[in-house]
Amino acid sequence: MINGRHMIEELEKAVVALRETTPLVASITNAVTVNFVVNAQLAVGGTAAVVYLPEEGEILASIAQSIYINMGTLLPVHEEAIPRLARSAHEYAKPWVLDPVAVGIGSMRTSILEELKEYKPTIIRGNASEIIALAGLWGLDGGVDESNVRGVDSTDQVSAARQAAISLAQCTQGAVIASGEVDLVTDGNLLAFSSGGSYLMPKITGSGCSLSGVAAAYAAVASPFTAALASVAHYNEAGRVAAEKTAAPASFQTQFIDALFTLTAMEIADNKIELEILLPNCP
Amino acid sequence: MINGRHMIEELEKAVVALRETTPLVASITNAVTVNFVVNAQLAVGGTAAVVYLPEEGEILASIAQSIYINMGTLLPVHEEAIPRLARSAHEYAKPWVLDPVAVGIGSMRTSILEELKEYKPTIIRGNASEIIALAGLWGLDGGVDESNVRGVDSTDQVSAARQAAISLAQCTQGAVIASGEVDLVTDGNLLAFSSGGSYLMPKITGSGCSLSGVAAAYAAVASPFTAALASVAHYNEAGRVAAEKTAAPASFQTQFIDALFTLTAMEIADNKIELEILLPNCP
Amino acid sequence: MINGRHMIEELEKAVVALRETTPLVASITNAVTVNFVVNAQLAVGGTAAVVYLPEEGEILASIAQSIYINMGTLLPVHEEAIPRLARSAHEYAKPWVLDPVAVGIGSMRTSILEELKEYKPTIIRGNASEIIALAGLWGLDGGVDESNVRGVDSTDQVSAARQAAISLAQCTQGAVIASGEVDLVTDGNLLAFSSGGSYLMPKITGSGCSLSGVAAAYAAVASPFTAALASVAHYNEAGRVAAEKTAAPASFQTQFIDALFTLTAMEIADNKIELEILLPNCP
Repeated sequence: MINGRHMIEELEKAVVALRETTPLVASITNAVTVNFVVNAQLAVGGTAAVVYLPEEGEILASIAQSIYINMGTLLPVHEEAIPRLARSAHEYAKPWVLDPVAVGIGSMRTSILEELKEYKPTIIRGNASEIIALAGLWGLDGGVDESNVRGVDSTDQVSAARQAAISLAQCTQGAVIASGEVDLVTDGNLLAFSSGGSYLMPKITGSGCSLSGVAAAYAAVASPFTAALASVAHYNEAGRVAAEKTAAPASFQTQFIDALFTLTAMEIADNKIELEILLPNCP
Repeated sequence: MINGRHMIEELEKAVVALRETTPLVASITNAVTVNFVVNAQLAVGGTAAVVYLPEEGEILASIAQSIYINMGTLLPVHEEAIPRLARSAHEYAKPWVLDPVAVGIGSMRTSILEELKEYKPTIIRGNASEIIALAGLWGLDGGVDESNVRGVDSTDQVSAARQAAISLAQCTQGAVIASGEVDLVTDGNLLAFSSGGSYLMPKITGSGCSLSGVAAAYAAVASPFTAALASVAHYNEAGRVAAEKTAAPASFQTQFIDALFTLTAMEIADNKIELEILLPNCP
Repeated sequence: MINGRHMIEELEKAVVALRETTPLVASITNAVTVNFVVNAQLAVGGTAAVVYLPEEGEILASIAQSIYINMGTLLPVHEEAIPRLARSAHEYAKPWVLDPVAVGIGSMRTSILEELKEYKPTIIRGNASEIIALAGLWGLDGGVDESNVRGVDSTDQVSAARQAAISLAQCTQGAVIASGEVDLVTDGNLLAFSSGGSYLMPKITGSGCSLSGVAAAYAAVASPFTAALASVAHYNEAGRVAAEKTAAPASFQTQFIDALFTLTAMEIADNKIELEILLPNCP
């Protein structure tokens, strides 16, 4: 049974637990937005380490409470470092988040993403086009072969990614976030829709990458579905609050990170969410 | 004939076109300022992808509306990636912008920059020392062999780069920006001088890099000369407005990016510009 | 003899000299915080170049007034680039600052840090755990073999790093900063304790990295001990001022960099410092 009150309590508990336990998130993440990713992870209560070398990734996977892998701005070193970090996360049973930025662009990214399927990311976060393309790459229902990914922008609506997100979640037995104007979160059994945020979010680079990074922080203290939903609710509420204070992107980014830090657990948990139960055999 | 009114209309049209068409700019750009570059490209209306791997650069060159190559913080992968991206831009006839940061420092940078001559950048943007040194490297009038480049700072005045800028523009049949307190823009036939900005611009890292990145966004929607001038006018007006609001660098950067986003086309086009016709055979 | 008035005058002179001479600092520094590092170096009056390739590092070492090496986010290229930059700094007798981020994590970092001992960094800056671990790695009193470094966070108090800091300073004949709530600075003969700052400093990534980068700028214009103390005093006063204006991390970072730029030399030099003389043979 869906129980709205229970979900709100779970979200509040996740926010508090993240702030109290300051888990370490080890990340491989892209050069463009790495500073924003880490500052967002710090703002929500985590702590952060970023790594490039394969050996160091494995060491950090053993130390960290969760792992974040973002596929943007690949370097040659990532060909080995990303699969080894994901495998380590899987072997250590650490929660890990995959952000399949630019899925479909380039043979190395494709090859890495194919391998990552077996390491079952705890949470996958992408825009609608990325979620559809990843499901396609992994041969799942709702995916398409042809990527509609245009750099980092989605050319599809979140509603179009519904089946792909469900398939991915059922495949990984984790959670999936398809983010957009309304964010879809699913664990293959439940679907949640979270709204809020601001039209300015896509005007600052890294709003998606850092959401994934924050989801990794939450994954250290909550179940995949709760962690995914908490990160989305936290982002939507912080975006809404920041947009009340400014209408231009750089000051919006400042207000947004400030709000990640200052929002109370109740303010985050009260952000509007719609829940839907998926019927068995009928996803 | 120079027609000031016509030029203002061209600039306004470029500003509007950039905001309406949101072209994708694919960039190889340095690690220090990549976040600022992308946020500036987004603020003026573009969208952005950053790339390191040679194969990915070629794919993005085929997808993107324009290309940006910045020579700062070279990694081993750039030895192959930069020439291949420039060649792709040239072959696909996509406009591309070259920022020859630190020209003269290191054998790899020199070797790459020598090769880039044949791919004829649509716009070259550097400080006076960089423009003079690049003209020298390419064996053009106004250039000097010995680089006066000191890290990222110019040790020459923009006026000293006049002949080098004209030579480069005539060589590439594109446009050149020599930026400084007053910015010089030329296509080899016309010279324009744009002023504004703020003494705080050099106090934030990446004001030059991001100007080049914004010029690439404009190059997707306007002729090389108009694109170069629009980017400079946009920057000078945004710098002037930001400096009215603060006298310290970090808040200046926030105000500056905000102004890139909020300035109207008319405010940008009205920024003071002086034009000069170059007499044939007499540059 | 310790002379408080003399120390304040030295600090004031360092602040003024840095602003008047704008020395060039060449850095190898990590991808997460490189933008913050450079903007901090610019805000205190320096200018900056960041480098990856070994050959370019050597060229910049010959041009720059000081060098900064930060061990975070190692790439394969750093295996050769970092030792060659440090050796060049040593051979050119340029002051250089070492930030041993994540000492103890990974065989490449360990191997590089072992080699750096012989190039005698002018200033070493780390948190307590890093200082203790580096002293351990170099076989010095006060060090421990087992690293307590957890990503970038210290698990030790600054007071616990007292002997390790003294040993390192005596070994390098330079200065050491163990930073934390109270910062310890020593040249092996004098100990200084500087306080101020804010609880928000650890909530923005790069407050430590950029302090080291600013220490490198100061090292171009002052003795190691004065440079170390000036950078710490500058940071503590800027942090205190910024925390009076905001209670959230992103706006704090903006106010902090603004304060680095706007504080007067007297305001910086007046920041509270406690001095202690170390008795010979009794560190």
